Amino acid sequence: MLTFSVTILGSSSAQPTLTRFPTSQVVSLNERLYLVDCGEGTQIQLRKFGMKIGKINHIFISHLHGDHIFGLPGLISTMALAGKKGELHIYSHSELKMMMEHLMKYINEFDDFKVVYHPLNFRKRAVILEDSKLIVESFPLKHRIPCCGFIFSEKPHELRLRPDKIEQFDIPIKERVAIKGGASFQTSEGEIIPSQELTFPADPVRSYAFCTDTVCRKQILPIIRKVDLLYHEATFAHDLSDLALKTYHTTATQAAELARDAEVNKLVIGHFSSRYKNVASLVDEARVVFPNTFAANDGDRFEL
Amino acid sequence: MLTFSVTILGSSSAQPTLTRFPTSQVVSLNERLYLVDCGEGTQIQLRKFGMKIGKINHIFISHLHGDHIFGLPGLISTMALAGKKGELHIYSHSELKMMMEHLMKYINEFDDFKVVYHPLNFRKRAVILEDSKLIVESFPLKHRIPCCGFIFSEKPHELRLRPDKIEQFDIPIKERVAIKGGASFQTSEGEIIPSQELTFPADPVRSYAFCTDTVCRKQILPIIRKVDLLYHEATFAHDLSDLALKTYHTTATQAAELARDAEVNKLVIGHFSSRYKNVASLVDEARVVFPNTFAANDGDRFEL
Repeated sequence: MLTFSVTILGSSSAQPTLTRFPTSQVVSLNERLYLVDCGEGTQIQLRKFGMKIGKINHIFISHLHGDHIFGLPGLISTMALAGKKGELHIYSHSELKMMMEHLMKYINEFDDFKVVYHPLNFRKRAVILEDSKLIVESFPLKHRIPCCGFIFSEKPHELRLRPDKIEQFDIPIKERVAIKGGASFQTSEGEIIPSQELTFPADPVRSYAFCTDTVCRKQILPIIRKVDLLYHEATFAHDLSDLALKTYHTTATQAAELARDAEVNKLVIGHFSSRYKNVASLVDEARVVFPNTFAANDGDRFEL
Repeated sequence: MLTFSVTILGSSSAQPTLTRFPTSQVVSLNERLYLVDCGEGTQIQLRKFGMKIGKINHIFISHLHGDHIFGLPGLISTMALAGKKGELHIYSHSELKMMMEHLMKYINEFDDFKVVYHPLNFRKRAVILEDSKLIVESFPLKHRIPCCGFIFSEKPHELRLRPDKIEQFDIPIKERVAIKGGASFQTSEGEIIPSQELTFPADPVRSYAFCTDTVCRKQILPIIRKVDLLYHEATFAHDLSDLALKTYHTTATQAAELARDAEVNKLVIGHFSSRYKNVASLVDEARVVFPNTFAANDGDRFEL
């Protein structure tokens, strides 16, 4: 199977701490890197955790609060200085383009490097990127300003040819691609062998859902249902559920309830309020509801 | 004497490295903190080096390149979130205000906290701040875009009263302030005792000059003459003097020549190109010309 992982670059909420930068993470599928949110210091964290800045061609921005975007100007400048070519695609609220262009006014002209902004739809689920391996969709969350979650889903894999059957029926190379796609095979004697007899099942399709910043929102359950990994913000412990509601954030217990109800495989909580010097209590609280919960810490890598 | 020091928060040039953040430093005089430039991650460095963000009320921005300003939005947001009151004064090119206001659009309203922008004059030396202890002046440097240096000078100190003379002439408390300011004293017998007989000399007045980013510019020599500490950029070693000239930067040798010709006490070089994994060679190069040279490293504190 291809490597499919999520690396946490920042796990704090609005204010960074000595150990937690603001929100940013890298979704990595088969050496392709997709950046999700870009808080201040993202370029520094990318370097620290050995991730190649030049490999990032797509950035997904959940919303326009500073702790999710203030790393963009520096990251883009560094890409340009490092001679990056081609297009960098940023998926965000439409206003980001203007905000960035004002700030980048004095950055030197980029020769063969262009930033392309793609406006998100904050009203409904939508496919925003599809490449050979992956589909990325956005879906509405509910925060103080327009905010989206993202779901990264592998495309269906091919069936895997059985070496014993290839030999038994002496299947020519040119027919193998079709069989992996589900076609049957006709032997020289005219016998039809169905694909499922010639192959092992395809690798399961994996998916990752990213949800921050938002009030606890049951409407997302059908969207995040059975994902392999759910990242959900848990800015507060549940004793501050009133504050969470007021500031449009989620508690650790609520995040765990969503994970349980959506039957996801694993939950990672993050976007911790800087008041928590140690987030073990938040993880403990969540594990009462959903045992397979882990804290996001800067530098952590979660494999799907 | 009051504590007068400079703490380096960032010593890299355009691109941060694993050990060097972009330009920022704190000038500290008697517990008052003055921030100079504000590259990405400045708020993180302030925290790391134990400097109280809430104590900063004045920020001096040399020019509008990203590696000197991209930390401002996050720093201001954090100040606001931490409940800072009153005014934060930012001294910069007049365009910064508009650039920042676009980016800060989605930051919540600050109740009793206001950012006040003061435009710098890039044509001539000018006093930009004067408080009870300090005078800050800007002066023109020469870079690809308008750029200023800053000079921080202590105000003249009072003369120090001699305890033996106070006793000898039984000087009343209410007359002592005038004597420390240079007034003479009349004894009950009508004798006039000049101030210099009653006092020790005042502590020497110290000054700090900050010069980045700029080509080597002899015109600054009268301004930085005999400062206690000169911070000057040395983006490149002298074998790259052509590149330095082309990009409007200075070499280590050139910075040392300025320090020598201006008869400063100590030179700190910084704003190192990320190509230098080890900057010892730059310091060695400078010390050939000006022995009292040191490298700026993130976290270093230089006392005046």
